[in-house]
Amino acid sequence: MIIASTSTIYGSDYLAYLFPELRIFLRDVKTVLFIPYARPNGISYTEYTRITKNAFAKISKEVVGIHQFENPKEAIEQAQAIFIGGGNTFELVNQLYKNDVLSVMKKVIDNGTSYIGTSAGGNICGVSMMTTNDMPIVYPPSFFTLGCLPFNINAHFMDPLPNSTHMGETRETRIKEFHVFNETPVLGLREGSWLRVIGNTIKLEGNLSARWFQPNQIPHEIESGSEFGN
Amino acid sequence: MIIASTSTIYGSDYLAYLFPELRIFLRDVKTVLFIPYARPNGISYTEYTRITKNAFAKISKEVVGIHQFENPKEAIEQAQAIFIGGGNTFELVNQLYKNDVLSVMKKVIDNGTSYIGTSAGGNICGVSMMTTNDMPIVYPPSFFTLGCLPFNINAHFMDPLPNSTHMGETRETRIKEFHVFNETPVLGLREGSWLRVIGNTIKLEGNLSARWFQPNQIPHEIESGSEFGN
Repeated sequence: MIIASTSTIYGSDYLAYLFPELRIFLRDVKTVLFIPYARPNGISYTEYTRITKNAFAKISKEVVGIHQFENPKEAIEQAQAIFIGGGNTFELVNQLYKNDVLSVMKKVIDNGTSYIGTSAGGNICGVSMMTTNDMPIVYPPSFFTLGCLPFNINAHFMDPLPNSTHMGETRETRIKEFHVFNETPVLGLREGSWLRVIGNTIKLEGNLSARWFQPNQIPHEIESGSEFGN
Repeated sequence: MIIASTSTIYGSDYLAYLFPELRIFLRDVKTVLFIPYARPNGISYTEYTRITKNAFAKISKEVVGIHQFENPKEAIEQAQAIFIGGGNTFELVNQLYKNDVLSVMKKVIDNGTSYIGTSAGGNICGVSMMTTNDMPIVYPPSFFTLGCLPFNINAHFMDPLPNSTHMGETRETRIKEFHVFNETPVLGLREGSWLRVIGNTIKLEGNLSARWFQPNQIPHEIESGSEFGN
């Protein structure tokens, strides 16, 4: 699995910073199954798939959208690789439940199908979507997600802005509130960082460190290049 | 009703900027019923009520916490005024459902009981909590809320930060995504702004304008001092 904080880094094209990694990760893959359920800005599945197709063409991979299949479960079972992009995590999870594909996706990933998730598509690799930053624009049947990682992801992790006068909660405050009600550790993944998960090994990639939160403990930084067991 | 974007403005004490308004609004009220369910930073009901008691003492009002009553419904029915403060909207709504007090609260507010809501306590005055900025740290039974207003509130509304390199969604993008799936208009209430709702009249107070969002329309500013019918 490749689990990235964001699809796009500032000043760069969609997915471009991940291409070197994806070329290697997808070396044996011809076609990627794209799941466009998160609909960033509310764009259609067709439009989101078109944009993604154009991006993957740059590393010579085909893309098909899951909505083009009559049976989404079969599409997942037969996929060589699966990519879920960013957008709204509530709507993504809502559609994953409505199409009843979460358990089959977990099964094929456990059996070795390559998975790429950015932003919302990364959030759902954790135990739950309870550490998303997104707005609850729809009510999904549950907040539980793939659970391929034994912790939760906070994508687009931001440090507090220096000199901010805004009184809304900082990201760290929000995660602290999560830990009043939940035990699951949280990895704050900054933009430009990603996890490479091979078997039981999780490695932090990219230039930045990530921030690790556990209940009743002071959060700490995990350095890029660190490996931690699943 | 007094529905405020935030309890606290930068550089000022808890609730202090609202005291002139609250002195008038609560002129016939001796004791305010406080609902501490939103637990900012995960603080206890006791601690949150203590802080609120100290603040209201400055305008010579008593405060009692709803958790001090055996029957929360009766506490609401008998209250002279109700205040719900900020924190996490998901946990607030979760507890309002668990204690089954939403419908009785709607009833007493419709019948004239004074209500003050800041931040999360303001969000729940709308049709749903679907335009909260908070993290979904618990799974409430529903996202529907009081519906005392015919629109939703987005508290702590922020304009896009100039020169930001962060790729997470802006507030305006999030509300636009909400309108792909929902028809309810949204009022983006900036910190320092509040609504005074008397009968069917809603008036925007404070120094700043607010931002009004409807599906398929360009958002526009509502000037401070404007009145709009409920």
